[in-house]
This record gives sequence, structure tokens and C-alpha cells, in this order.
Amino acid sequence: MLKIAIIGYGYWGPNLLRNFSLVDGCEVAAVVDRREERLRAVKRLYPAVDVYTSAEEVMKDPSIDALVVATPVFSHYPLASEALSKGKHVLIEKPMTTSSADATELIELAQKKGRVLMVDHTFLYTGAVKKIKDIVDMGVIGRLQYFDSVRINLGLFNPEVNVVWDLAPHDISILLHINNEMPESVIATGISHTHNSIENIAYITLNYQSNLIAHFHCSWSSPVKIRKILIGGTNKMIMFDDVEPTEKLRVYDTSYKVSPVSDEDKYNILVDYRLGDIFLPRVSQEEALSGVAKDFISAISKGTEPVSNWKNGLGVVKVLEAAQKSIKSRGREVKI
Amino acid sequence: MLKIAIIGYGYWGPNLLRNFSLVDGCEVAAVVDRREERLRAVKRLYPAVDVYTSAEEVMKDPSIDALVVATPVFSHYPLASEALSKGKHVLIEKPMTTSSADATELIELAQKKGRVLMVDHTFLYTGAVKKIKDIVDMGVIGRLQYFDSVRINLGLFNPEVNVVWDLAPHDISILLHINNEMPESVIATGISHTHNSIENIAYITLNYQSNLIAHFHCSWSSPVKIRKILIGGTNKMIMFDDVEPTEKLRVYDTSYKVSPVSDEDKYNILVDYRLGDIFLPRVSQEEALSGVAKDFISAISKGTEPVSNWKNGLGVVKVLEAAQKSIKSRGREVKI
Amino acid sequence: MLKIAIIGYGYWGPNLLRNFSLVDGCEVAAVVDRREERLRAVKRLYPAVDVYTSAEEVMKDPSIDALVVATPVFSHYPLASEALSKGKHVLIEKPMTTSSADATELIELAQKKGRVLMVDHTFLYTGAVKKIKDIVDMGVIGRLQYFDSVRINLGLFNPEVNVVWDLAPHDISILLHINNEMPESVIATGISHTHNSIENIAYITLNYQSNLIAHFHCSWSSPVKIRKILIGGTNKMIMFDDVEPTEKLRVYDTSYKVSPVSDEDKYNILVDYRLGDIFLPRVSQEEALSGVAKDFISAISKGTEPVSNWKNGLGVVKVLEAAQKSIKSRGREVKI
Amino acid sequence: MLKIAIIGYGYWGPNLLRNFSLVDGCEVAAVVDRREERLRAVKRLYPAVDVYTSAEEVMKDPSIDALVVATPVFSHYPLASEALSKGKHVLIEKPMTTSSADATELIELAQKKGRVLMVDHTFLYTGAVKKIKDIVDMGVIGRLQYFDSVRINLGLFNPEVNVVWDLAPHDISILLHINNEMPESVIATGISHTHNSIENIAYITLNYQSNLIAHFHCSWSSPVKIRKILIGGTNKMIMFDDVEPTEKLRVYDTSYKVSPVSDEDKYNILVDYRLGDIFLPRVSQEEALSGVAKDFISAISKGTEPVSNWKNGLGVVKVLEAAQKSIKSRGREVKI
Repeated sequence: MLKIAIIGYGYWGPNLLRNFSLVDGCEVAAVVDRREERLRAVKRLYPAVDVYTSAEEVMKDPSIDALVVATPVFSHYPLASEALSKGKHVLIEKPMTTSSADATELIELAQKKGRVLMVDHTFLYTGAVKKIKDIVDMGVIGRLQYFDSVRINLGLFNPEVNVVWDLAPHDISILLHINNEMPESVIATGISHTHNSIENIAYITLNYQSNLIAHFHCSWSSPVKIRKILIGGTNKMIMFDDVEPTEKLRVYDTSYKVSPVSDEDKYNILVDYRLGDIFLPRVSQEEALSGVAKDFISAISKGTEPVSNWKNGLGVVKVLEAAQKSIKSRGREVKI
Repeated sequence: MLKIAIIGYGYWGPNLLRNFSLVDGCEVAAVVDRREERLRAVKRLYPAVDVYTSAEEVMKDPSIDALVVATPVFSHYPLASEALSKGKHVLIEKPMTTSSADATELIELAQKKGRVLMVDHTFLYTGAVKKIKDIVDMGVIGRLQYFDSVRINLGLFNPEVNVVWDLAPHDISILLHINNEMPESVIATGISHTHNSIENIAYITLNYQSNLIAHFHCSWSSPVKIRKILIGGTNKMIMFDDVEPTEKLRVYDTSYKVSPVSDEDKYNILVDYRLGDIFLPRVSQEEALSGVAKDFISAISKGTEPVSNWKNGLGVVKVLEAAQKSIKSRGREVKI
Repeated sequence: MLKIAIIGYGYWGPNLLRNFSLVDGCEVAAVVDRREERLRAVKRLYPAVDVYTSAEEVMKDPSIDALVVATPVFSHYPLASEALSKGKHVLIEKPMTTSSADATELIELAQKKGRVLMVDHTFLYTGAVKKIKDIVDMGVIGRLQYFDSVRINLGLFNPEVNVVWDLAPHDISILLHINNEMPESVIATGISHTHNSIENIAYITLNYQSNLIAHFHCSWSSPVKIRKILIGGTNKMIMFDDVEPTEKLRVYDTSYKVSPVSDEDKYNILVDYRLGDIFLPRVSQEEALSGVAKDFISAISKGTEPVSNWKNGLGVVKVLEAAQKSIKSRGREVKI
Repeated sequence: MLKIAIIGYGYWGPNLLRNFSLVDGCEVAAVVDRREERLRAVKRLYPAVDVYTSAEEVMKDPSIDALVVATPVFSHYPLASEALSKGKHVLIEKPMTTSSADATELIELAQKKGRVLMVDHTFLYTGAVKKIKDIVDMGVIGRLQYFDSVRINLGLFNPEVNVVWDLAPHDISILLHINNEMPESVIATGISHTHNSIENIAYITLNYQSNLIAHFHCSWSSPVKIRKILIGGTNKMIMFDDVEPTEKLRVYDTSYKVSPVSDEDKYNILVDYRLGDIFLPRVSQEEALSGVAKDFISAISKGTEPVSNWKNGLGVVKVLEAAQKSIKSRGREVKI
């Protein structure tokens, strides 16, 4: 029976606790949070779980096999680093770290120590993303041509990181998951409407050596909630609308073929459009976080490769880092 | 009775002919197109209109008071220039010209000759945009904070100009119309999935000295048709969804106020969100092009200032030009 | 070359004239309407067409092969009857007549005279209904269990017939077309909010000997326009949403199987629900009325059986008649 | 401190327990359910609550002030009757009883004993219905002309009562709440696609002496979930779409005025349509059941009149009873 400790019991904490409690082969032994009232909430629902206001106890407790780090992002690196050093497996909330240097260090440490290091990009375990991955892998949509994501709503303004670090990790991790290719460069723009210079609106373009373009629109300032990804392939196109309660996925049998323009009539280009049927596959409604928990436990106990692995986690941080740099230098292209 | 000649009878030609035919105080005297079958189509519906395969005749005919230039964009400048030189008033289809230098020259010529020079940014005459302008002018939404436009659909690939010159003029003209302020610089990215290097997807950010950001997403490669503009003010927000048949406009009584973060608890920023009622004003269904035609005739005969004036037309060309330059230099910031 | 005369040039007239003008093998020789200004409108667009203020001329002109009767419904019977007597083929606008007795008489006359008698249930020629018919005929949805139609919007109040005769013919003709079975009885309710006792809201249930139920909700008093038909089969279900510009049809791979309740636990019924994928077939965008015109001409010149034949037309009138009777007797069941 | 017992801990039980636990001035002292595993679930979350497999204990315990009856509908009457006889206050789940005779008996008993008898029509406590009630009461929409409700989805087939008793109580209680007028008669149709003759689809019309018509479409057999009420008044119209996560209510500034037809032109009726703005009021997101619990406790302790009072509960049962009778007699009009 693997013993797990959860560090940080904020917004996501109760979900982590509930899901890990239900996974076979592990038990949640401890929860750490410096806010006493959060710990009392744990005790009320799970009287058997130990609670602490600091991570010290669980770090030095050799019976704790693995840590789930669910604290604000700036503390991911020190906590994960200490845990790995002490031979514990680590699952980190997204985004992995505040820099790719930190992420790389953690990865090397995990490899040296032979421990599992995984990032909780929960979206990769949703029915919708699993179905998209299947469709893309089967070659249904053809070669990827564009990936366009809009993730906007009102609030919650985050005081520590800008809207890019808050919202884009979801979409970047999905892109890296379905298309295993790092972008060549990033060009990003944004604005802060607050006094703290933390951007609340941002636009990010990823350039690729292949014929792909990716774009992310993130905002905390929209009166409507939009969570929409358009994926264009040479054969078909996919729309993932996460606001829809059940009809999240649409596969459009739509494409266009462009032929060289004839010499005689340069006013007409030969584009063959195809607007065909639309298919809405039913997607699993199983809770994604349950998949994360099982995948982490399986990686530890059976040595399986987790879906949301450190490569994806590191890739996401590299893109975020470049996007941040590009915004701060007014849209300068930042190589990755 | 003002006599009008229409140069170019393509996609938009029948609409121009029909609308100008119905305006009091003017008559369409001639239509020019080099395609004989297009001229036959004119004759069938309007037997009294003269038709020509070249503009020569109407240029030298002193009884023609005004020209409507509805040819491909590269010929706007020479045709308008000749017409103005010959003392004719000119209405040019959007975008005005292929360069701001050309546009400036036309404007100076029009001023020297004392003739009306107007650009057909039809959208400015739609019920929806007129209502938005009213709402913004009355101060209802407060100071403008963002303007986000998505104009995407499948095709039609244009062989002469990229998706920016094809689709963005609509949205840029709307932005300049409701907010009389030129951006400081433009950062744009895009991709061409065709052999002719003409971009079919583009993303454009406009930076302002004020606290405003504007962004345009244009695409000929989307399986769904989206025509959506989000306008964020300090007090309220507007969504203009042009795909909706009747409910095109939504005014959200939504805003957020950000207060300085307290020193003690840096984990919490003080943001006061307000999610209020939504108001869908009924907008006029009158045909916008009818408004364009009347405005042009009124400008000629009564000396009124047209809504879609050359300032707006020039501003649009400047932004397009800068966007084009930025895309071709991989997102470099281009000052305006 | 068949010569056609159109009697009645109201709302639908220009569409009939335009579509019949484009069908090979026929020409529109005359248009009749008692309103002079309507006839001038015909002359402007089609100078070669003869126009009359009364049907007398075309009735006695032996060169006129066929009549399209597009007058208010009460004059359908006398006009069609006279035309058939004179050996002309007849296409009647929906609904066929104001009573099934009249319809039956016309049918017998047409058979005696060996002439084509067809009803313009345009909807049967739309891409969407043709696709539904194909899907049902191929057995995809299984046995029909329910047909639920909602056709509501604001106005136009009709001064001659109630909302049932105005709106329900569309949906009843679709039902009879895809399921060749007359209902056993009709139960209908409704209300008139006007002084003339003409119902503006009505609800109609059709009972069948088979396990089918059909229901129609018609209204001129709704602030929203809804045009939605739900068709439930034992295997799949279809939704036809005619307000959608392109995505009119949805085939749900959804069904339920009900097993006999177990004796022990009468609190649970064994229902096996299946919520599967959704398929949106692309439907033809061809103008339906063009199909009507071609079908009529083909029936005359080649003897083919038209899709919108008199059986469908008569069936619709029988249901309307029974519905009317039921409403007026406060929902009494009216046998058909 | 009032002591409450909840009888029946099924689907709705946990919500009742949670909400009553949070109301000031009362405590949940006991939960009764004959299923042991349901009682264990209670104990896990609320160790202090007593649990019983039969209602006997709580009935005879004089310290229990009030009962919440959340058992299947057929047991509502005996349980409520016994509780009232023993001087306890009673809140009954909807629908109140299986017959209006039973309901009337309970009401008389409650009045004799001076105890509160209330029905849990939760919908009356939702932000949306409260807002509708306000709008109607303020005279905004004018005189009520129609009330049209559609409540359809896939399953859950109920083995005890038909779809009318399962789904219609929500909409009937809303109608009676906003318009304090009993219908004159009911005409209903329906069908059972199961072996047990329990209808899974039903259509119900309510006739009124005033100029109002109400209609309810209930179904367990729809592939799509629709929860929509249209309310037409002489001045404005309301749409309540309960499937929408936030935009549940739309007030249409839409109406029509019908004038007497002129004598000269009987082809035209004078209808003046008004299609105006649309207003989407923000509605409270507070949990409705919390309002029910507070209202019950307030009625007991302060003698206030509850919103979901026995008049509403009795009215709902009368309509359901009549609808059932009408369906079983093939749509015969049943007077109320």
C-alpha cells in the first residue's frame, strides 16, 4: 500500500484527496497546508488522515512514498526537489515550475534517484482529449495545419502569475500531447489592466518548422466563458468546445485542396472545398483526475509511462517561459 | 440628378447597382466590366444603363459626376486617381488601396480638387455597428480596454491578397469608427498553407498608448463560420455576433475593479467582479449598403461628412500595411 | 414545350415564376392576379410573360397545358376543378383544399381526365427531408415511436385560416411522407386571442393503431422562431432543426430498451439506455421549389409519380379537417 | 431548536439532509430509510443523526417537531396523515399525494391540528422562478395569454408513476405560483412504449375561463434535454430555459395587437407586431432547496405563509389527476 501526502489543500486539494482516496493500492496518509481551517476541513471528511501545517514532517517520514505538490507554482521546485532527494515520487500540479531550468533539474534528479516525476495536466485524462488523441493518431484528420485555442472568462485574477501561466498550460499540454513536436519559436502579446503589471489578456503564436501554426487566446476579462479549440488537419477538422455539457467534440469532414493557379486567369485560384458531414463522438464522462491518480500510482508500482509525463510538463514550461519573454519584449520572436 | 458609373461588376456589383438605383437624386448611368457576360447581366435587369468593357468612356464623359470603384484592390489607386483628376467624386470599395502612400495621394488629390473621396466600409452602416457606436459614444461601457475580433470560415481563398487584406478591413474599420485613436504599433503572425505564400490564417495585435489592446483573428480555413467581436470597457462589455440572425448584440453589465493588493496577504488580490444583467438591443435590419449609397450622394450634393470617410479608409490601410510587414518579418513590432 | 400559367402572384408567386422559368421543357406563358401592381412586377422582370387580372383567359386558352394554383386556399377547389375539367394539369399550393370532400372530388376528376394533380408541399423536396426519408427507409432508426413538431414564431396572423391550416401542413406532409400510415384519430386544442375566433395557438395529437404518437405545436404568438421536429425510433432518433442555417439534421445513436420489471424489486424498472454518438449529415442546399417544378413537369411529360402526390395532399387535408373539428369541440377525439 | 426527521433517504435525501443541517433554528435529529446501506451513508457524514429502518420511532417520539416526507408518492398520504395526527409539522416531497381527496384530507387535518403542511415544489425557490414571479406581479408582461412548457430528456423511466406525475409537477406548480387561477378543464394525450402501460410521453392542455391556454409536453424518450417554458403576456413574453447554465431567463419586449379587420379588404387583418429588445436579468444562484428549508422552519417558528403552500400542492395534484383521467379516456375533457 503506497502512502501519499498532499502538500497544499487549496481549490484543487479536495479533488486530489477524494480521487486518491479511491485508488486501489494507495492511501492518503497526510495533508499539509499552513491554513488551520483547511486542515480542519480535511479532518471532518477524512478523520484518519494526518494533517500538518508544514511539509517538514512528511518530508522526513520514510513511510511516505509519494508527494502530491499542489501549492502555488513558485514553491513547486523547492518542494519537489526536496522530496525527490529524499527518494519520494512526485506528482506536481501544472504548471510544473516557474522556469525550464528548474524543471530540467527536477527531471535529472528524478532520473538519478529512479523516482517517478509526473505533472498533473488533468485535461490529458478527459474523455474529450483522449478521443481527440485517438482520432489524430489514427490519421483521421491528416497532417496538422493549425491549432487555435480560446480560453476566456471573467476572473479569477491571479496575483502571482499572469493569465498565460494560469490558463495556457491546459491548451499547450493538449497540443504537445496530440502532436509530439516542439515549436521553433513563440511570439506573444498581452496587456495588464491592473496595477501589478500582471497580464490579464494574452495572445500567443507558436511557429513550427512543419506547416503548423498554433495560437492561444487567454483572458480573465471576458463577459462570456469560451473554452474552444479548433484543430485543422489536411483531411478533417476538429472542434473541442469544453463549455458544452455533453457535445464537446465535433469532427468536421471538411477540407480544402489548393492547386497551382493557372497562368491564363490569375484572378482565380483553384481551391477545392469540401464541406461534409459532421460527427459528434460520445466521450467518456469519467472524472479526469481519477485517471491522473491511477496513472501516477501505476507509474510508481508498475513502472508504466504516465500519459502526463515530465516531457509534456517540461515542454509546457518552455513554451510559457518563451511566451512570457516575448510579451515583456513587445512581441519579439523568442526561439525555443 | 447626379450620374454615377460603377467600375467593376463582380460579387458586390449587383448590390451596388441595386442600391444606387434606389437612392433619390442619383441615377446609375453606366457600368464597366471587362467581362461581356457580366455586362449582359446588367442589361437584362437594367436596360437603361450603359455598359462598357473599359473605363475610358466614363472617365472622359463629363456628364458622369461620380465613380464607384469596385474592382480588385490593386486597381483602386489608378482608377480613383484618374477619376479625381477629372473632377469626379469617388467611392472606393474596401480596402481603399494597397498602400498608405497611395491612399494619402488620393486624399490630397481629392482635397485639391474639392471632390468627395469615400471608402465603402459597409459594416459601419449596419444596424449593429450603429448601435455599438451609440452605446460607446454615450459612455455606457466606459473606457475601452480591449477589442477582440474573430472572423473565420471556410474559403474563399483570394489569389491576390492574403486573409488580412480580405477579412480584417471589416473589423479594423469598426474599431477605428467606435474608437477614434490610431494604434502605436502592430504585431502580426500568420501562415500560408498554399503554394503562393498568401497567408490563409493570421493573428494581429494592435498596441495603443492608452490602456487598450486590439486583436484580430482572420482565417479562410475554419470548418465553422465565426464572426464575433468582444469589446471590453471599464463599465460594461459588448459582444457582437454577426452570425446570429437577429440577436446580434449583447451588452453585458459586467466589469471588474482591481484594487492594490494588501501587504499582509499577498496570496489574494482584491478584484471586485460584477456579473449583471444582459441586454440585447434590437438593431435595425435596414440594408447597410443603402446607407452607404445615401451617405455618398449626400456628401456630394449637400457637403455632409460621410460616416465611412477617408480618415477611416486611410487608417485601415495603415494597419493592414503594418500587419503585412509584421507577418513577413516574423512578428516584428511595426510602428505606425 | 409545356405552357404553364400561374394563378395568384402573392408571397410565393415570384418564387414559382423564377423556378418554373428555369425548368427545361416548360415555359411560363401567363400569370394571373387581380392586383395590377403585382402584374406590373411580373412584366418588369419577365416581359415575355402574359398577364391577366382574371383566370378566364388562361382557362379557355387550349395552349396552356398546366396551371399552378397559388391563390388563397378557399379558391383552390373551384380553380383546380375548372382547370382539370378543361384538361389541364394542376399543381396546387398547400393545403390542397378546405375540405377532404373537395380534395377527393378533384382527385377523381384528375383520374377521370387522366391529368396530373399535385400539391406543392415544398418541404418534401428539401435536402433535409429527403435525407430523413432515406434514413427512415433504410431502417436506420427502427420502428417509429414518436414524431414531435414545434413550428412557432411571431405572426403573420392569417385572416382566413387558423394557425393549424397555416403552419401544420408542412409538418403533417413530412410525417405522411416518411411514414406511410394514416392516424386513427386526432385530438386537438387551441385558442384564439383575436376577435375573429381564428386560433393563433394550437396543439394537435395524432393517435395511431401502431405504437406511434404524433404531436404538432403551432403558434403565431411566440417571441422566438422555433422549427423543430423530433423523430423517435426504436433504434435511433432524429432532430430536424430548420432554423439552423447548415446543421439542420442530427441523428442520435440513442435508444432505450425496457424489460419487464422483476417481481422482487418493484421500485426498479429495467430500462437500458443508450446515449451514443451524434451524426450530422450534410444535406443538399438546392432550392426545394426547383425540385417541385421539375417533379411536376416530369409527371406531365414522362408520367412519373410525383413525390408530393395527391395522396399526401389528401392525407394532410384529412388531418387538418379532423384537427379543426376537434379544436372546435374542445378536444373531442375525431376519427379519421 | 426544532427537531426534524427525514423519512426516505433516496435521490433527494442527501440534499434535504445537507440543507436542513445548515438552517438556523433547527437540527436534523433522525433519518429513516429501510435500506441499511443508505443509513450507513448518513452516519458517515453526520454521525450525530439517529437512523432508523422504520418511521415508527420518530412518529412516537414527541421531541420530533417536524417530518420531511421524501418517500415514493404512494406513501405520502399515510405518513403525513400519521405525523399530523401526532401533532407534527410536515413537509412533503412533490407531488403531494396520489389523489386530490387524500390531499384535501391532509389539509383539513393540518388545519384542525394547527400544524404546518407544506409541499416541496423546489422550483418555486429558484432564482429564475422568483424573478419570473416578480416580473409578472409587477405587471411587466401584461395579462397572461399562454404558458407553454417542454420538459423532455432521456429516462429515467419511473416504475410507479407515469411521466406526467414525474415531470409535470414542476411546471404546473410554477404556473399556479405565477398565476393564481385554477384551470377549468384538462385535455391530455399520451402513449406508453413499455409493457406496463405507464406513459412515457404526454401532452397536456389546460383550458381557462380567462383568455389563457397552458400546455405541457413531458417525455422520458427524447435524445436531447429540453427544459423550456414560454410565457406570453399581452405586453411582453418570457422564455425560461433551465438548461442554460447562467442565461436562464429572457424577457422579450415583443407583443402583437390585433385590430378588427376592415370591411373592404378582408385579405388583410390588422395586426401590429412589436419585436423589441431582449433583456436577460441576472438571477440568483442560491440553492433553491435552502430556501425551501428556511421557509418551512419559518412557517413553523414564526407562522409565516410558505411560498410552496398546500394550496399550490393541492392545485398541482388536481391538475395531475385530471390529466391522468383524460389520457386514460383518450383525450376526453376533464373538468376540474
